[in-house]
Amino acid sequence: MDTSPRLAHPVTRRRVVIIGGGFGGMTAARCLRDVDVILVDRTNHHVFQPLLYQVATAALSPGDIAWPLRTLFRSQPNVRVVMDDVISIDRTTRVVRLRDSAPIGFDALIAAPGSRHAYFGHDEWEAYAPGLKTMADAIHLRERMLRAFEVAERQRAETGAQDRLTFVIVGGGPTGVELAGSLLEIGRKAMGPDYPNLRLDDLSIVLVEAGSRILPGFDPVLSARALAALERMGVTVKLNKPVTAVRIDGVMLGDEWIASTNVIWAAGTKASPLLNTLGVDQDPCGRVTVQPDLTIPGDPWIFVIGDAARCIGKDGTPLPGIAPVAMREGRYVAHLINQELAPEQRVPFAYRDRGMLATIGRAQAIAQIGPFHASGPVAWALWSIVHVFFLIGLRNRVRVMFEWTWYYLTFKPGARLLCEQPAVPPTSNHASAPTGVDRKSLRRAA
Amino acid sequence: MDTSPRLAHPVTRRRVVIIGGGFGGMTAARCLRDVDVILVDRTNHHVFQPLLYQVATAALSPGDIAWPLRTLFRSQPNVRVVMDDVISIDRTTRVVRLRDSAPIGFDALIAAPGSRHAYFGHDEWEAYAPGLKTMADAIHLRERMLRAFEVAERQRAETGAQDRLTFVIVGGGPTGVELAGSLLEIGRKAMGPDYPNLRLDDLSIVLVEAGSRILPGFDPVLSARALAALERMGVTVKLNKPVTAVRIDGVMLGDEWIASTNVIWAAGTKASPLLNTLGVDQDPCGRVTVQPDLTIPGDPWIFVIGDAARCIGKDGTPLPGIAPVAMREGRYVAHLINQELAPEQRVPFAYRDRGMLATIGRAQAIAQIGPFHASGPVAWALWSIVHVFFLIGLRNRVRVMFEWTWYYLTFKPGARLLCEQPAVPPTSNHASAPTGVDRKSLRRAA
Repeated sequence: MDTSPRLAHPVTRRRVVIIGGGFGGMTAARCLRDVDVILVDRTNHHVFQPLLYQVATAALSPGDIAWPLRTLFRSQPNVRVVMDDVISIDRTTRVVRLRDSAPIGFDALIAAPGSRHAYFGHDEWEAYAPGLKTMADAIHLRERMLRAFEVAERQRAETGAQDRLTFVIVGGGPTGVELAGSLLEIGRKAMGPDYPNLRLDDLSIVLVEAGSRILPGFDPVLSARALAALERMGVTVKLNKPVTAVRIDGVMLGDEWIASTNVIWAAGTKASPLLNTLGVDQDPCGRVTVQPDLTIPGDPWIFVIGDAARCIGKDGTPLPGIAPVAMREGRYVAHLINQELAPEQRVPFAYRDRGMLATIGRAQAIAQIGPFHASGPVAWALWSIVHVFFLIGLRNRVRVMFEWTWYYLTFKPGARLLCEQPAVPPTSNHASAPTGVDRKSLRRAA
Repeated sequence: MDTSPRLAHPVTRRRVVIIGGGFGGMTAARCLRDVDVILVDRTNHHVFQPLLYQVATAALSPGDIAWPLRTLFRSQPNVRVVMDDVISIDRTTRVVRLRDSAPIGFDALIAAPGSRHAYFGHDEWEAYAPGLKTMADAIHLRERMLRAFEVAERQRAETGAQDRLTFVIVGGGPTGVELAGSLLEIGRKAMGPDYPNLRLDDLSIVLVEAGSRILPGFDPVLSARALAALERMGVTVKLNKPVTAVRIDGVMLGDEWIASTNVIWAAGTKASPLLNTLGVDQDPCGRVTVQPDLTIPGDPWIFVIGDAARCIGKDGTPLPGIAPVAMREGRYVAHLINQELAPEQRVPFAYRDRGMLATIGRAQAIAQIGPFHASGPVAWALWSIVHVFFLIGLRNRVRVMFEWTWYYLTFKPGARLLCEQPAVPPTSNHASAPTGVDRKSLRRAA
């Protein structure tokens, strides 16, 4: 007797639950037909993650690279969006449990909850060295960066001297490299003119990598070119330097100490802890090792895709956690569900290399698509075209292409807003004499 | 002997301190010449307040209507921007005290700290009924609004029923009227299609006014037209109904109770408490009663302008707290300082009525400029042109005009982002049976 769970009674429509509104989940939802889809995400929007580092460095605003999920699926009445946290997946009863809503039953499940960065057993470092994975992360980092400039400016205006303004980025993968380049550019070109007291030679960006080269997923020649480009821009790159300690005022790299109150973590990978509730094998990063058809062992209608899945590619190594992979996987599983293909009818998932891109500043990038390599402005132009193309929907593409061109030209100052901190009520002391006042500021006193 | 404080020794440049980067302070800074200017603001940006209600209703993003002060003054090297809170003003020693920075001495002071709303002695109501004066307020209100829709949608999806989604706006002045109209429009037109489960007839917007008509600063005929327009849109307007109590779940208007967890306060005026440290006469709203040359009594080089000042106009009534008034006052005091005019040489400040405008939704408005009255789409077109014209700088005008046209056409979905709430770590319970689960959701259980 065939004990594999069947899809539901043919009279009622099948229901597919998708966990996660990122590239994988969103693409699957767009491709599913003739089923009821419930898409659960803890935020109400889809983030274009490749550009998240630009929100973190105040080059773009959140609304430029994120779209409400409800609006994206407005024209697909079979897709319902639920904004909530998934607490656990119950395979036996075929139910996902949510934090605030009632549990949701499913016929098929697509788990695409993504991943975060990892602190290699030192989760306490997160308080001093936040990461960059969600929009909330990006907004937090942006605020830290803007306040750091304000404090340095004030310090210099008051004392004439200034501590070196140092930013440390841990992790030489694409996120770290792109953050480093963008931070340096925004710091010097967009903000420099706004801070006349800051000596921007005192702005220091340090990129720290534990391995022997940055961008290890790329060809070594391209890694070397990227390294040269970063150093020409003025970023200090430290290779073969794993972080051994993180404190509120700096990081330790073995016996080297870097003083900084602006540390950003862009290293390591840890898949969503939600996957632990599936009860299947996971790799050290927490990713689920999936079958050739992207299912979990023993259940042909529970799929794991995107950064949360460990899927072995043609060359025997796991596929990278990048958007094109997640999108292809989403399309694949949607097809299996649409066609109601039984396990023995399914062709294994195969990913045709669509290449990788990483930017280094406003007009530089490296690109690698199969044997094709490019670097410099050509690669950057390619990066721009590809990213816009990947965007969902023609209407969005046209709009965003126009907006980004405009923002590129104007350095989009509206992205650099800081709101006030809680106000202290003033005291009424118009009759009292000043105390402990800096003598320099009294030169106008009567 | 002339005991009035003189400007400083002619060898050193005079220093002018401006408190507040709103319309008054910013205009003064732009007009001052040959002096050192220090502009202190508790945020780092200037907000275009007339459109703040659109950020609150997620029609625009923060970055669309705010510009970093540093960027605005980039081309004026005599202006230095300090981001801090002013705690007190010491007239005797001619020093302003700040929260985090060293005190700053001044030769001339322009206090333009603005005003907030007022709770008529019930400051405890603010926790349940926040107001709308700063960008932080707008972002907070926006989040409340978006979450309210999400919760209502979820409720309806789970139970089939739905509490009426009611928003109460207290205060029938321009802010309240504009909020009401925008909320209704965004709720029905932009968000309606995104919430298929919500019956938007259940969306109720109630505008509450203590007086006998809304927009009391306008001609009664225009007030009546605005009221008719709001009611045609679907807003419920309650006149002659002062609020007597505010609770977490609603408001009391005498003996009428309105249940609502979404109350917005747009009534009353209270000038910045900072002014208390000046030790001069203030009206019941806290505004400083200024001399004909906008100075405080007994000090010809301390000015108060904008919403913080009570300046009597030609007709014997105080000038309204609107942007054109603040800008004219800023220009006037800058001229006095530039020319170093002694008190006896100064012409009293005179404000030529530049009219008032208020919008009611996307294509309706009322306008009143002297004897000229207009309402409907004509007034709205005028409103748009005037607001764009008021914007600082040609470059900004062109850019913003383009952007707002685009946003108007597309309802700018990117403004409607919600970030996640803190996540709850999932439990590993794949073997346990479901408990307390809604029977309807179990229809797919094995």
